[in-house]
Amino acid sequence: MKKDLDRLMQERNIDVAVVRGVVKGNSTMFYVVNGAKISHALVIKKRGEEPVLLCGTMEREEAEESGLKVVDTSKYNYRTMLEDAGGDRVKAAVTYHKTIFDEFGVTGRVAFYGLTSTGPNWVLLKALEEAIPGLTVAGEFSDDIFLTARATKGPEEVERIKEAGKLTCEVVRQTVDFMKSHELKGDTLVKADGSPLTIGDCKSEIRLALAKRKLIEEVDTIFAIGRDAGIPHSRGNDPDPIQVGKTIVFDIFPQEQGGGYFFDMTRTFVLGEASKEILDAYAQLEEAFDTVYAKLKGGEWGGQYQTMMCDVFEKFGHETIRQNPQVRNGYVHSLGHGVGLDVHEKPTLSDFPGVTDVLEPGSVFTFEPGLYYPDKGGFGMRIEDVCYVTESNEIVNLTNFPRDLVVEL
Amino acid sequence: MKKDLDRLMQERNIDVAVVRGVVKGNSTMFYVVNGAKISHALVIKKRGEEPVLLCGTMEREEAEESGLKVVDTSKYNYRTMLEDAGGDRVKAAVTYHKTIFDEFGVTGRVAFYGLTSTGPNWVLLKALEEAIPGLTVAGEFSDDIFLTARATKGPEEVERIKEAGKLTCEVVRQTVDFMKSHELKGDTLVKADGSPLTIGDCKSEIRLALAKRKLIEEVDTIFAIGRDAGIPHSRGNDPDPIQVGKTIVFDIFPQEQGGGYFFDMTRTFVLGEASKEILDAYAQLEEAFDTVYAKLKGGEWGGQYQTMMCDVFEKFGHETIRQNPQVRNGYVHSLGHGVGLDVHEKPTLSDFPGVTDVLEPGSVFTFEPGLYYPDKGGFGMRIEDVCYVTESNEIVNLTNFPRDLVVEL
Repeated sequence: MKKDLDRLMQERNIDVAVVRGVVKGNSTMFYVVNGAKISHALVIKKRGEEPVLLCGTMEREEAEESGLKVVDTSKYNYRTMLEDAGGDRVKAAVTYHKTIFDEFGVTGRVAFYGLTSTGPNWVLLKALEEAIPGLTVAGEFSDDIFLTARATKGPEEVERIKEAGKLTCEVVRQTVDFMKSHELKGDTLVKADGSPLTIGDCKSEIRLALAKRKLIEEVDTIFAIGRDAGIPHSRGNDPDPIQVGKTIVFDIFPQEQGGGYFFDMTRTFVLGEASKEILDAYAQLEEAFDTVYAKLKGGEWGGQYQTMMCDVFEKFGHETIRQNPQVRNGYVHSLGHGVGLDVHEKPTLSDFPGVTDVLEPGSVFTFEPGLYYPDKGGFGMRIEDVCYVTESNEIVNLTNFPRDLVVEL
Repeated sequence: MKKDLDRLMQERNIDVAVVRGVVKGNSTMFYVVNGAKISHALVIKKRGEEPVLLCGTMEREEAEESGLKVVDTSKYNYRTMLEDAGGDRVKAAVTYHKTIFDEFGVTGRVAFYGLTSTGPNWVLLKALEEAIPGLTVAGEFSDDIFLTARATKGPEEVERIKEAGKLTCEVVRQTVDFMKSHELKGDTLVKADGSPLTIGDCKSEIRLALAKRKLIEEVDTIFAIGRDAGIPHSRGNDPDPIQVGKTIVFDIFPQEQGGGYFFDMTRTFVLGEASKEILDAYAQLEEAFDTVYAKLKGGEWGGQYQTMMCDVFEKFGHETIRQNPQVRNGYVHSLGHGVGLDVHEKPTLSDFPGVTDVLEPGSVFTFEPGLYYPDKGGFGMRIEDVCYVTESNEIVNLTNFPRDLVVEL
C-alpha cells in the first residue's frame, strides 16, 4: 500500500523517487497521481515527503484532481532552454531537469520509475548523472518500491477490483446467453441469415457488453476454440465458427475505462456435449484446482502452490513445465499472478528461483490452473479466479461465476 | 516508411536495433512486429537484415502472424539461468540476453528502442555494456530511426487511417444527432425522465458508437463545455449538463481496436444560438484556418505554419504562445502533429528551435488551430482535421465533416 513507500525507500537507501512518462498505460504513474487524467507528467517524491506533480499548463485542472501539489511546467520556459541550447534537445532536457531538480532538492541516490522510451531514457539519465554532481541514478531492477507497495491493496482498491469482477461476470454470462440464442445447424451455431456464428461475432458482443459497463479490453480478450484453446495465449481466430463439442477458453481481463484496475477470469465451455476425453481432463482440472486452492493461505510463499499444482498434475500423468520448460502438452504455465493496475503484477505464484513473493493481507491474485493438448487432443481448458487475502490471512474468492463446463443448447 | 530503416541505421552508424517490451501501447514494437498480437517480445534487427522476433512459446502462433522469423525463447531455459545465478535476476537477465546476442551476432553500436520500465532498463543496459565486450549501447534521444521511418506512411497505412477517419466522422455525427434527439427545458437538454442530459451521457454514447465500429478510446475523448472547453486538454466534467449557447469542444482520437492506427479530429458546437462574441471568434478561427491551410505544401518545414498561424491570430488581437509561453487566453498550443500508431508522432508543426520536421509525401498530420478564453469569455473552440501529403506534395484532407458551429435544435 502507498503508506509503505517511505519505509521501502528507507530500506533501499533511496533519497528521491522520480516517476516519468505518460499516465495511461503507465501503471506506476497512474498509481502515484491517483489516476488523474493528465497525459504525461513528472513526479518527484522525496523520502518522507508528499509527491509533487509537474505537468503542462493545458492539463492543470486534471492535475489538481490528483490531490498532489501541482507545478505548472510552463514557467520553466522549455522553448527558451532549447533556444539557449541551439536546438540541442539533449542539452535542453538536461537544463530543464536540472532546473527542476535544483528547485526541489533532487539529489543523492535518485531512483527513476515509469514506462519510458528506452533510448531517450538511457541518454537522459546518463547526461543527468554527469551534469548534476551529487546525483546518482539508482535503478531498481525488479520488485521496485512501487510494485512492492502495490502488491497489497487497501479496501478501496479491493472494492474496485471486486466491482470490475461483478461486471466481468455479467459479460461472461451475457456471452454464454448470446451463443445459446443461436440455432444449431449440424455441429455449428448459425445466425439468422444461416451463416456460422464466429469467434469474431462473439468478440464483438463481448466488446459492446464491456463498453456498456465502462470496462475496456486493454489487450484482446482470449476467446479461442478447439486446438487454439490448447495454446494458452491464443486470442482465437475471428473467422472460426462456434461449434459443439469443442472447448472454448474464454479468458477475459478488462480494465476500468480510462486506465485503472483490472479483473481477470477464465472459464472453459463446451457447447452441447463434451467427449469423455474432455470430461475426464476437466474433472482432473477441477480436482487439481480444489486440492491446491484449499491450501491457499495468507502469510505463505506463493511459489509453493505452483509446486503443489505440478505435483497433482504429474500424479495424474500430465507433463508439466517443471519437468520441461518447453512443454506444449500438459500444464504449461505458472499458477497465478497479482492483479491491480497491471493485469500481471505482484505477488506471483511462480516458483522460479529467487522469487520470494508472499501472499499477504491485501494481496489480490489469480489462481488459474489449466491443461493444454493442442496437438494430442485438439483442446485446452483453464479455470481462473481472482482471490484476495483478508487481514486474518483468509482467502476470499472475488469470482462469482459457476465453472460448469458443458453449456446445454 | 519501413524501407528507410536500413538507410537510417547506416546514416546514424547503428549496427543493430533491439526493440524490447510489450506490444500493445508500444508503438515501435507494434510497428516492427506488424501488429502481431503477442504480449511482449524482443526484436533484433541487424542493419541490412530482416528483423528476428523472439517470444514465449505460448504466443508462438500469434508471433507467426508478424511475418518475421520467429524464435521460441523457451529453448533458452531462463529458469536454469536463474538457478545458476542463485536467483539473482539481473545476473540471469544478462546471461539470457548475452546468450541471445551471441547467437544472433548482436555487437558493435547497438541501439535500444521501445517502451520499457525505466529502472530495469537502466540496470540491464549498464550490465550488458559491461558484460559484453564489443557492445556499445547507442541510445537515440529523439527522432529515432523508427519514429523517423514512421513519419511517412505507405498507401496501406494511409488507407487504414482514412478508414478510421470515416468511422470517426460517423461517431461525431451520431453524437450530434444524439444530443438533438433530446428535449430542451429552459437552457438545458433533458432526458425522458426530465433529468439533464450530461457530458457523461454523451461520452457513454460516444464509447458505444466507437466500440460498434471496432475503435477504442485509448485515452478519454475530450467533450468539454463552456469554460472547460477553454482549456485545451480538459476532458470535460461528466456531471455537467448539456446547455444551449455554450461552446462544446469535441476532440475525438480513437485507435483501431487491439492497438493500431489513430485518427484525431475536433469540432466545436454550440447548441441553439451562439453569442456574438463566440460567433466573431469562430469566424476569426475559420479565417485563420483557411488562410494558413491554403499555404500547406509538401516538402516544406512544418514549423513555418505555426509561425504563420501566430501571425494571423496576433493580427486579430489574440495573445499567442509565441508571445507568452504561459498564455492561457488566446492561441495556446502548437498547430499540429503527425498521426499514426501514436496519436502524436512526427512530423510536428511546432516551430521550436531545432525542430526540422518537413511535411513529406506520406506524412499524415493534424492541422488544429484553436482559440481559448476560459477566464475572459468562458469558452473555447478548435477545428482539427487530419491531412496527408501525396507523392506530388499536394495536401489531401482526410476529415470529411462540416465545421458548422451552431447546431439547431
